[in-house]
Amino acid sequence: MSEKPVSLSDVASLAGVSVSTASKVLNGGGRVSAETRRRIEEVAARLDFRPNALARFFATGKSQTIGVLTSKAPSMFALPVLLGAQSALGRSEMATLLYSVPYDLQSLGDAVRKLRARQVDGVIVIGDSLEWPLHSITHSLSVPVVYALGVSEDPQDVSVTPDGRMVGRLAVQHLLDLGRRKIVHIAGPTRDLATNERAEGMTRTLAQAGERLAADVMYGDWTRGWGIRAASRLLEQGTAFDAVFCGNDQIATGVHMTLRAAGLRIPEDVAIVGVDNLSSLLLQPDGFITTVDTRMAALGEAAARCLLEAGTGTVEPGVHYQPCALVVGESTTGARPGSATDEERYLEI
Amino acid sequence: MSEKPVSLSDVASLAGVSVSTASKVLNGGGRVSAETRRRIEEVAARLDFRPNALARFFATGKSQTIGVLTSKAPSMFALPVLLGAQSALGRSEMATLLYSVPYDLQSLGDAVRKLRARQVDGVIVIGDSLEWPLHSITHSLSVPVVYALGVSEDPQDVSVTPDGRMVGRLAVQHLLDLGRRKIVHIAGPTRDLATNERAEGMTRTLAQAGERLAADVMYGDWTRGWGIRAASRLLEQGTAFDAVFCGNDQIATGVHMTLRAAGLRIPEDVAIVGVDNLSSLLLQPDGFITTVDTRMAALGEAAARCLLEAGTGTVEPGVHYQPCALVVGESTTGARPGSATDEERYLEI
Repeated sequence: MSEKPVSLSDVASLAGVSVSTASKVLNGGGRVSAETRRRIEEVAARLDFRPNALARFFATGKSQTIGVLTSKAPSMFALPVLLGAQSALGRSEMATLLYSVPYDLQSLGDAVRKLRARQVDGVIVIGDSLEWPLHSITHSLSVPVVYALGVSEDPQDVSVTPDGRMVGRLAVQHLLDLGRRKIVHIAGPTRDLATNERAEGMTRTLAQAGERLAADVMYGDWTRGWGIRAASRLLEQGTAFDAVFCGNDQIATGVHMTLRAAGLRIPEDVAIVGVDNLSSLLLQPDGFITTVDTRMAALGEAAARCLLEAGTGTVEPGVHYQPCALVVGESTTGARPGSATDEERYLEI
Repeated sequence: MSEKPVSLSDVASLAGVSVSTASKVLNGGGRVSAETRRRIEEVAARLDFRPNALARFFATGKSQTIGVLTSKAPSMFALPVLLGAQSALGRSEMATLLYSVPYDLQSLGDAVRKLRARQVDGVIVIGDSLEWPLHSITHSLSVPVVYALGVSEDPQDVSVTPDGRMVGRLAVQHLLDLGRRKIVHIAGPTRDLATNERAEGMTRTLAQAGERLAADVMYGDWTRGWGIRAASRLLEQGTAFDAVFCGNDQIATGVHMTLRAAGLRIPEDVAIVGVDNLSSLLLQPDGFITTVDTRMAALGEAAARCLLEAGTGTVEPGVHYQPCALVVGESTTGARPGSATDEERYLEI
């Protein structure tokens, strides 16, 4: 691996041109005839020549660096977004300069000054899905800015965020397709954007099928404890239901345990759907709970692509909703042959 | 936030020196008298001048970019290491170029060629705690390399990894301090380095106290399902035990549920300790299970500091073991007054 790298003058010499002409073609920055360009590019490809960063920086004035702002303590959702964005940028040889800062105007202002000093070519602001709307810093910078896992306060900004309505639609359509008609919804906090978008997608899908919820939406928090309390309340109230759409997988696990303990069969008596695909985030074996995966790493990659394409004028301003995906588990379709016992599997989440 | 940034010539003019003299002081790269240097630095500080990246790149030939290699699908442990490293680098205005690649020699060779072409100032290789040893790429690069969350195959390399023996020591010392003498250990897979280091720390700590395990170490996997099976086996065998040190928090939760279901009181009859501080990784409220936190973000920061200091000759070659921390929960010391009910709390993990 330690052979001497191919230099620009190696390429120039083999192509029969001057070093400065080769530089214009390979580092960008000047006019060269099509025929000469083709010859230089052909030699560069044959030798596997990679222009070095210093030369490219000289020639183009681009830093090949993207600034990334995350909140002070990014959540388990923001981390895969960060990774997805950086992986996509790395494939395009773009480095990232990360500032993990509180989301107040003072801290953002400091970060913007640093990003300008570093002459980054663009900026990605990663929210935490709960903060909404995100402060817009677009007008403080002369380079493209993309907002991910959150929505900028400025509707002209480009924001890339999970399609919360699609989450609600996929979850409920799956339950309807299985013939369930008495669906209840145990949701997260009513103040969260995700909660409201999911409920909206759910309600619309039910209405299109001529159905409605079997009970009012129950709002709480995102914990397993809330799933336990909410399911207990449903049982105490004697609500008739054959399916529960839960705000996340932790709520779903609490619901599952409580219904099982009460002697109900999952999914025969009650089918359960969660959100987040938590077992994939934990890198556990695939889960028992049917879930909607919001595909955070793919969202990060999409945000990076938007940023890389921002200069081409092909990226629409506004909110880009990223599709999610249903991951079917045993909590709606029953145990698969040869799989681990029900008791063991549901505890893997 | 959009005021015009302070330029080098603003500083030079106010300090009464030429632009080239100001550049030598602020971007590095030349000799200037102490008195002149002081005056220029004083003006720069007063104006909040930040040298721009292009100028610094010209003056020093440094890219201010660190290459970071992670495995193709980094685990929930590698992500906070990545974040911690990047946060520390960001504070030093260092960008990172991330390549998320399979850990084979071909892919590493490709990555090394790219890192050289980008003229990075250093490289961090982030392992996945399970891969061991990590391939050494140090000799393919002319810049410092630090290995994190894993140990390089070359003992002369700098590796920063969790102190697995300290994990075992803290867990067992805590149980001994609480007066427990019949301790059992339900571990992860025997092939994993973490498993063996923790068992070693545990055994040594027991020996120093003149104690030994109440049963042979039980090796399995890292899941809650394994915790359930192992605890069931202990109960069936009639093993007498008053404490369980578990390989991670997921095993611990499975053990806890199984013992509770069998009518045992936690911690009165059996105290339980896990590893990982999973509830902090999930950003859940503090957990019920007493756990040893391997402090992954701090480990990433330490790796970044090692790299930044590598040029100063103060970093020792070899393995730098990062300290972990005991996080005491109710599974060893009982419910705190005013806390949520036991049933609710243990389900939060």
